[in-house]
Amino acid sequence: MSSDRRPDNGFYAIVPAGGAGTRLWPLSRVDHPKFLLELFGQRRSLLQTTVDRLQPITDGICVVTGTAHAAAVARQLPELPESDLVIEPSPRESAAAIGLAAAVLARRDPDCVVGSFAADHVVHDVATFHRVVHEAVATARAGYLVTVGITPTRPATGFGYVCSGAPLDVPDAPSALLVEEFREKPDDATARHYVTSGRYRWNAGMFVARAATLLELYETYQPELAAGLKRIAQAWDVPSREQVLGEVWTTLPKIAIDYAIAEPAAAAGRVAVVPGSFGWDDIGDFRSLSSLLPPAIEGVQVLGDAEVVADGTTGSLVVSTSGRIVTLLGVSDLVVVDSPDALLVADRSRAQDVKLLVDRLRGSRPDLL
Amino acid sequence: MSSDRRPDNGFYAIVPAGGAGTRLWPLSRVDHPKFLLELFGQRRSLLQTTVDRLQPITDGICVVTGTAHAAAVARQLPELPESDLVIEPSPRESAAAIGLAAAVLARRDPDCVVGSFAADHVVHDVATFHRVVHEAVATARAGYLVTVGITPTRPATGFGYVCSGAPLDVPDAPSALLVEEFREKPDDATARHYVTSGRYRWNAGMFVARAATLLELYETYQPELAAGLKRIAQAWDVPSREQVLGEVWTTLPKIAIDYAIAEPAAAAGRVAVVPGSFGWDDIGDFRSLSSLLPPAIEGVQVLGDAEVVADGTTGSLVVSTSGRIVTLLGVSDLVVVDSPDALLVADRSRAQDVKLLVDRLRGSRPDLL
Repeated sequence: MSSDRRPDNGFYAIVPAGGAGTRLWPLSRVDHPKFLLELFGQRRSLLQTTVDRLQPITDGICVVTGTAHAAAVARQLPELPESDLVIEPSPRESAAAIGLAAAVLARRDPDCVVGSFAADHVVHDVATFHRVVHEAVATARAGYLVTVGITPTRPATGFGYVCSGAPLDVPDAPSALLVEEFREKPDDATARHYVTSGRYRWNAGMFVARAATLLELYETYQPELAAGLKRIAQAWDVPSREQVLGEVWTTLPKIAIDYAIAEPAAAAGRVAVVPGSFGWDDIGDFRSLSSLLPPAIEGVQVLGDAEVVADGTTGSLVVSTSGRIVTLLGVSDLVVVDSPDALLVADRSRAQDVKLLVDRLRGSRPDLL
Repeated sequence: MSSDRRPDNGFYAIVPAGGAGTRLWPLSRVDHPKFLLELFGQRRSLLQTTVDRLQPITDGICVVTGTAHAAAVARQLPELPESDLVIEPSPRESAAAIGLAAAVLARRDPDCVVGSFAADHVVHDVATFHRVVHEAVATARAGYLVTVGITPTRPATGFGYVCSGAPLDVPDAPSALLVEEFREKPDDATARHYVTSGRYRWNAGMFVARAATLLELYETYQPELAAGLKRIAQAWDVPSREQVLGEVWTTLPKIAIDYAIAEPAAAAGRVAVVPGSFGWDDIGDFRSLSSLLPPAIEGVQVLGDAEVVADGTTGSLVVSTSGRIVTLLGVSDLVVVDSPDALLVADRSRAQDVKLLVDRLRGSRPDLL
């Protein structure tokens, strides 16, 4: 049935648009999460840029989001068919979100390939990204659950890693390798070892598979989840959708797709990796954001329209959405985020710990989250 | 004529209320200078506190200010007689400002003693301050121009110093010493030498003298200024005041009283110093302000109503008038000043250089000064 198709025909993207991006507080908020932000001055949000990047290589894009952001997503993506905007009734983690979209797409096109791509990542070299996804689709057609492994550019401790094994002999996918295992975020020494070994790549959370393959893996490793998703998908394009979704959704196991599916499938030799090197970042914190911005002028990188006056300042980042002037005097390696209702001044080295501050505000000032 | 008066009878304070307090930007502004600020949460500005401190020991207080702040001063001091608010038609430095007030007071009470006290300094121990001023008035009655010399508590390089010589034998002023000379702001090593010598005290710009003595010194060292001030003073309490003031004021030499009068008078052996140790500060910059605030909690001193959340932070000061939450993460020795239209983040050690930033804004953003 699929043999006479070009590999990219029948390829659909699933874009989970979730997560507040807590480490980018107070720039990102629960109400205004990272994927909705216009971070790089092109008047396109990360979500819009993600869709722009996927459009040329897909037959359709299915965005999965929560009730809180469905309206904003719909407005940012006016061309998105309503039936391709999947609104989760409540947060249920990635296995349910991606599985539901895959099940819906599989009912429409049983032989389709689906690929999941987060809504809030950055890709610099889109042409290379397309070539890598093309290989991943070809590898998926050969029956694998395929992840894109990002060639590390530094010994990052903030990402999980994919450990590759033997090359696979898949037509149109010369780079594809078998995955031996997924590894959690490493410590510093381990990360350095990973990078020098050449066998470890960043797990960017991109998964490509035939929908049928993916659903079969769900049936194998998460049978309860698979059964629930199947019930919802059967009702998706008929009038009982809302009722069935509402009934079944809250009964689904809450689990990440990495743990639920990818890790056991890798252990069973069912996962492949296509290495990619296209300038990728998940903008996990302000340090990461800083690395994506133009170089500093007078020691300060500036994101936003803020007027900045600096004297004797080095290695600092100013993010401003308040319209106020920001003046820096004799400071080094600071992150200053100036929003209308909250100010953050942090040492760059503590960028990951912005989360701790947000946790402290959760009780006292939930209005600021 | 004065022999049967108690020393403090016929003592009038002159309070020059000028200077923007540039080093406290963006807390202090041209429109809202340091002397109008309520810095210590008592709902009294520095000007009001200065007047409160002088009221019990004076027969009257004359406030000298510019046209820009006359209305604010009048409102902050509703009890001040209109004739005791001297409004300079244009900025003309301290010799003209203090001299005019002295000339006006001398016409009303030829035997009076006047004392000049800046509107934006802090005094902690008011009872001791009163005792010191009492001695200064007694010394002034003996014919000296008297300065109050603050016993140094650290080798400050931000103040000028008064070098004392032999004790004077003045009734009711056992501490009074002859002044040998005034010294400019010293470098660090010199300041340390000054402090250990015991002969040098901070010049707090407080001058006490019989008005007649002061005006005689003006006639000796600044005859042109003295003549102009005399013309204005003669017209002060008659209908032609505005006209004469407007005509003469702009012709007056622009010079500080220290250079114009105090230094040459010291060289002529006409200046005395009464040492004082009453917790004085001129709040010259944010480091100085910080030393006057309650100790830090979680590494942060807070001035204003700001809600502050800090983690891993030491030695920092947050001044907020914006109502926003301020969050600090892993930073040390910072000064964060959060105002509605401008943010300053500075290293404490650069507190004196806030002036440099303000100078940079003078051309581009005069609205923020």
